[in-house]
Amino acid sequence: MTGRYLEDFAVGQTFGSGRLRLTTERIKSFAGEFDPQPFHLDEEAARDTIFGGLAASGWYTAAITMRLLVESDLKPAGGIVGAGADELRWPRPVRPGDELRTESEVLEVRPSRSHPDQGLIKVRTTTLNQSDDAVQVIVANLVVRRRPVQGGGETDVSELVDRAVPCG
Amino acid sequence: MTGRYLEDFAVGQTFGSGRLRLTTERIKSFAGEFDPQPFHLDEEAARDTIFGGLAASGWYTAAITMRLLVESDLKPAGGIVGAGADELRWPRPVRPGDELRTESEVLEVRPSRSHPDQGLIKVRTTTLNQSDDAVQVIVANLVVRRRPVQGGGETDVSELVDRAVPCG
Repeated sequence: MTGRYLEDFAVGQTFGSGRLRLTTERIKSFAGEFDPQPFHLDEEAARDTIFGGLAASGWYTAAITMRLLVESDLKPAGGIVGAGADELRWPRPVRPGDELRTESEVLEVRPSRSHPDQGLIKVRTTTLNQSDDAVQVIVANLVVRRRPVQGGGETDVSELVDRAVPCG
Repeated sequence: MTGRYLEDFAVGQTFGSGRLRLTTERIKSFAGEFDPQPFHLDEEAARDTIFGGLAASGWYTAAITMRLLVESDLKPAGGIVGAGADELRWPRPVRPGDELRTESEVLEVRPSRSHPDQGLIKVRTTTLNQSDDAVQVIVANLVVRRRPVQGGGETDVSELVDRAVPCG
């Protein structure tokens, strides 16, 4: 299947995901490469920090969320291409052993004014732990392809020639 | 040094960073784990996508940005602790070989109403490539410690007892 075109999305649609369990080892190694701060690296050092114990980097949670989204049923044609996000929050820490999943809801669907072959959907994705507590909320804007026109009835050859891009 | 307390931050302050060069191998392996889509994994498959060639996952750019920030002079006391972001954008793709750096500017400084020992700073961080093109913009809200009161003159024992949390 080629995935969903802009025309296949509608406000209010929801999409779930599978689950991923986070290990202490990967939480620490991700932090070692990208977010080397005591509360993400070492249980002992994390105890006296604002987190009160080892917590995953928010960027690890964000990356895991992306993995869950890619494997979810959202599947826009052309892939999940983020133009950015209007909001990104981490309401509570992610701990070693937490099992994460996502719930996504389509908030907005609109064709692009500048690119007639694509549009944008606004999607709120909540990442939840095994107790159904939200650990991340993101409201993202995704670029989605529009359904190609069937039969090409409105296109003639001169138009195609006009569109051709000179090579070199 | 313990880092900067809330009182040490002021609107308009700017902070630069070092530079990190992105390799094709790490762009692909990050994508393999967190964002397995053709345009982040394979040059050939990426050619006919919206990116027109291999591009880094936005989450890899975000993670690299965090690494640059941790090593920058921003250094809040208690570490870089993000409550979230009001905005996150990827205005142009990051390509293999790109060398990234960050520029951060303090937009807002305010004490917390609910936590008298901390506050929030709003910081816009722009991630730039070697041509000084912005590849990511994030406006983040960071939790920052307030400077501890010297001598404790304004706290008496009854106040501490009032604040004590019952255990069990």
